[in-house]
Amino acid sequence: MTDKKISVAVIKRLPRYYRYLGDLLENDEVRISSKELSKKMGVTASQIRQDLNNFGGFGQQGYGYNVEYLYNEIGKILGLERKHKVIIVGAGNLGQALANYSDFEKRGFILEGIFDVNPRLVGMTVRGIEIKDIGEMEHYVKNNEVDIAVLTIPKQKAIKIGNDLSNWGIKGIWNFAPVDLKVKLSADVVVENVHLSDSLMTLSYNINNNYKNKSVKNDL
Amino acid sequence: MTDKKISVAVIKRLPRYYRYLGDLLENDEVRISSKELSKKMGVTASQIRQDLNNFGGFGQQGYGYNVEYLYNEIGKILGLERKHKVIIVGAGNLGQALANYSDFEKRGFILEGIFDVNPRLVGMTVRGIEIKDIGEMEHYVKNNEVDIAVLTIPKQKAIKIGNDLSNWGIKGIWNFAPVDLKVKLSADVVVENVHLSDSLMTLSYNINNNYKNKSVKNDL
Repeated sequence: MTDKKISVAVIKRLPRYYRYLGDLLENDEVRISSKELSKKMGVTASQIRQDLNNFGGFGQQGYGYNVEYLYNEIGKILGLERKHKVIIVGAGNLGQALANYSDFEKRGFILEGIFDVNPRLVGMTVRGIEIKDIGEMEHYVKNNEVDIAVLTIPKQKAIKIGNDLSNWGIKGIWNFAPVDLKVKLSADVVVENVHLSDSLMTLSYNINNNYKNKSVKNDL
Repeated sequence: MTDKKISVAVIKRLPRYYRYLGDLLENDEVRISSKELSKKMGVTASQIRQDLNNFGGFGQQGYGYNVEYLYNEIGKILGLERKHKVIIVGAGNLGQALANYSDFEKRGFILEGIFDVNPRLVGMTVRGIEIKDIGEMEHYVKNNEVDIAVLTIPKQKAIKIGNDLSNWGIKGIWNFAPVDLKVKLSADVVVENVHLSDSLMTLSYNINNNYKNKSVKNDL
């Protein structure tokens, strides 16, 4: 693999390639041409070739891509060849939903702890993992080399807790609170914000715009 | 408001403006300069001015933006001034988590129905809404002018159900199944895919890259 700088736009598309290649692998597909892949993914074949060329010569003229090889190589680029220890902070509905996603474990994200402030939740188990009191989190994080904390807590608490976790040595935060933690924390910790309501508002915009366009067409 | 074509990149940023302006409004802020807003949001003031200029003269030299006015105008652009009727398909953990998000209701997304195949869930209520058998969904959607269906079901079912919903007249699908429905369905229905595992893999990439960059620095 080459070491050249890869653009953010390409990085953002890698998980999607990985997902499609994983589906092909599940269906026992051995190889695929960039043309076939492009039809499946709804992007141009030339974009696929350009994107994947960033990582060296995965494809072969007249053969296409070896599905399993490409899947594994992209997995390595995404850092999935190593295991990540994960904790969930906030054991409400969303926290429990994420705890139950077995897909994450398949990709090496191993849930090892769940924390909450609510005494009614503390002591219960989710997928065999006991929910601990949040007061125990500092000691746990400092002594267990946790890689990723998933924050499913209200935004008022997310900034403080994100800061604490960052000071305690966490490497990454997967943030579901409706606040841009990236802006608020130190550069040492990597943050990925998931803003569900932003996504819903984008849908709303597109529905209303689609509807407007149709009215215009009907009026003609 | 002008009617000129607005770029996808600007549209994508609108929910974020809306969120920040909502926070300011909660803190009783009356006005804000593009410079202050830029500091809060971590983008340049000139980008903010350019973005908002797309929608006419919201700002005033020497005054800045009126927070409430701008919040309401962006809300209108996003289609939030009208109510959207929502159903959730799949009453598992994630479906229930989304059903319990009161923030969505505040923004006019009104949950009116929940459907599942699991007989153990059918008849239970979430936020006062009874979970119905999925066999009743066709009749319900055809007779209740549902705007948005939230899909929290496995990917094997999402394509078929997405197709059905689209034929029954749904306007938008908010898809949480790990499949790109946009590619699979007709253009009549608007789809917003939320790929949680893509987001987690992006985090993984950034953690590993951050770590690599640091090792390099330490080696020097």
